[in-house]
Amino acid sequence: MADPNMRQNVEDYILDLQDRIIAEFEAIELAHNPSLANDPPRFKRDEWIRPAGGRGISCTFSSRNISSSSDVETVLEKAGVNISLVHGKLPPPAIQQMRADHSSIPYDGVSSLPFFAGGLSLVVHPRNPHAPTVHLNYRYFEITKEESKDGQQPEVVAWWFGGGSDLTPNYLYPEDATHFHGTLKEACSGSGDDAYKQIYPAFKRWCDEYFYIPHRRETRGIGGIFFDDLSTEPHPRLPDASDRPTTQSAIFDFIKACGDSFLPSYVPILRRRMDAPYSEEERRWQLLRRGRYVEFNLIYDRGTKFGLQTPSARIESILMSLPETARWEYMTDMGEDGASREGKLLKVLGRLNEAKS
Amino acid sequence: MADPNMRQNVEDYILDLQDRIIAEFEAIELAHNPSLANDPPRFKRDEWIRPAGGRGISCTFSSRNISSSSDVETVLEKAGVNISLVHGKLPPPAIQQMRADHSSIPYDGVSSLPFFAGGLSLVVHPRNPHAPTVHLNYRYFEITKEESKDGQQPEVVAWWFGGGSDLTPNYLYPEDATHFHGTLKEACSGSGDDAYKQIYPAFKRWCDEYFYIPHRRETRGIGGIFFDDLSTEPHPRLPDASDRPTTQSAIFDFIKACGDSFLPSYVPILRRRMDAPYSEEERRWQLLRRGRYVEFNLIYDRGTKFGLQTPSARIESILMSLPETARWEYMTDMGEDGASREGKLLKVLGRLNEAKS
Repeated sequence: MADPNMRQNVEDYILDLQDRIIAEFEAIELAHNPSLANDPPRFKRDEWIRPAGGRGISCTFSSRNISSSSDVETVLEKAGVNISLVHGKLPPPAIQQMRADHSSIPYDGVSSLPFFAGGLSLVVHPRNPHAPTVHLNYRYFEITKEESKDGQQPEVVAWWFGGGSDLTPNYLYPEDATHFHGTLKEACSGSGDDAYKQIYPAFKRWCDEYFYIPHRRETRGIGGIFFDDLSTEPHPRLPDASDRPTTQSAIFDFIKACGDSFLPSYVPILRRRMDAPYSEEERRWQLLRRGRYVEFNLIYDRGTKFGLQTPSARIESILMSLPETARWEYMTDMGEDGASREGKLLKVLGRLNEAKS
Repeated sequence: MADPNMRQNVEDYILDLQDRIIAEFEAIELAHNPSLANDPPRFKRDEWIRPAGGRGISCTFSSRNISSSSDVETVLEKAGVNISLVHGKLPPPAIQQMRADHSSIPYDGVSSLPFFAGGLSLVVHPRNPHAPTVHLNYRYFEITKEESKDGQQPEVVAWWFGGGSDLTPNYLYPEDATHFHGTLKEACSGSGDDAYKQIYPAFKRWCDEYFYIPHRRETRGIGGIFFDDLSTEPHPRLPDASDRPTTQSAIFDFIKACGDSFLPSYVPILRRRMDAPYSEEERRWQLLRRGRYVEFNLIYDRGTKFGLQTPSARIESILMSLPETARWEYMTDMGEDGASREGKLLKVLGRLNEAKS
């Protein structure tokens, strides 16, 4: 059963989480450049209306946001923390794309389907090559009987949550990986009556599988968690029905625990790395790795594909995940030496492939 | 009927064309930096063998190729002139991709198909924002009864040529556009008994349709020519059967005329623009436009998609078309002012979309 207030509950939660995340990053920027107190680096807040139904708030950071950008080095190079609350009709290609993961959707193959999707998406590309890129997305999806109208809740035919969070470092720091994965594990595992053992390993594995770049034979980063299609229905990745949240309310609590774990999972890592000295070569390596990030997002990411196929989708919000700059070199020599720090990263990113073959 | 020597003829032609193109660009580089006579900027020549069948020669230019790269500014920033002569079996997803344009291929939907593909692909990204990026690809494709073995020619079930050339400027120079299109028109139109009126307009239109970025509602550049599936069979885009090459040999002559027109179509433009003074803002605009180039190539380009799906494809050669650096800004202000030089380019790139709606 879908709680008729769930859309509103999700909306309230993600709006608050968005505010908390932005406040934290802005505080970090200001502390990093106290001389900018009169014109501190801020996210640009951009509220938008989707003509076909719904709205959103895109909050983006760019070092261009500050007037004196050429004199200071901001902690973040480019970041986006976006909320989107949209409804409308899904065209057949978008449904086909979605049914890869949601075979339970009642569908005749030709009609459009009324839907609602509400979620928070975030990508943070710090400037320092030693600080990792992080991505997060949590979303709530409804297929409804009638098309939604703003402010009205139609009957829900199917609903589910999806999301996750993953880390993409340019250089390996085992303590960063341990901290990131550990924080997510704790968030996924709950406590007391809501303690789940199977979720973290299942969603961690799913993350490694999802953020994989087949043509490069490497993962995008060092993983995290990823999941989709989480509802009260049986879930193929969670075989033990007693070791998982089984009500919509308990699933929403799980989502909130994941969302709340974002700042504790990432900020300590960012603080540790953001002032590290770095060389031109390390910057070059970072931009090459960002090239891979672009490849994954444009070629494989289902959210991007889905967005590009959705009529009147807001392209600027979908592609906000792309880095400010990326680099491609033919047959680059960087990372070729397995003993170099670059080569060591490549070895770790190639592990999934090795495990497969 | 397929000439059993056609593969060899194609190979001979494109190997020679590759040499001529590289010699010309290297001469331009040397003339531009005569002080580098002892270590002139050169293409890196990389011969490769495809384990699953075939070979290739990738010739790539990078300013990193010269040892003293930080002191001099090369004319080209990144370029690739690649030959690939490969054979093997096409897996079903690649065949599906291909059949979008080649419905005549005999296919049962499940088997693999033996194929040969030989072609020259070229992308040149000059450093100066006022000099346009250019792309060219001419290829010969065979579906064969048996799988090819190196040095042997199996019976040909179907064959066709495809290719084209298109220009992607960051700033509009009407005289450049006129020269580029005019040279291609002349090459397509032939002369005497081999004069064809319908080809250039048909292939020019096809180019505008193909190099279109739906999610940006703009073309990749200002076009050129594009075609596929050119054989002795009827062609849906060439309705007048008397105004086109109708033998394999005449089609090959047409391809050679197109290939031979590359240097005359592009080099005069490059020479005119390569020394233009430019500002940081113009460089920024160039990198933003290169972001669009990356979007087209990774999301829509059929050659790239086909390559990424081909088992043991040579990824570095497929992705050599990507620029050295690209840039993405959320809701960039560049080009917003319709009266600016950037805004004027956007207007022209949006024209196809306007014509459609």
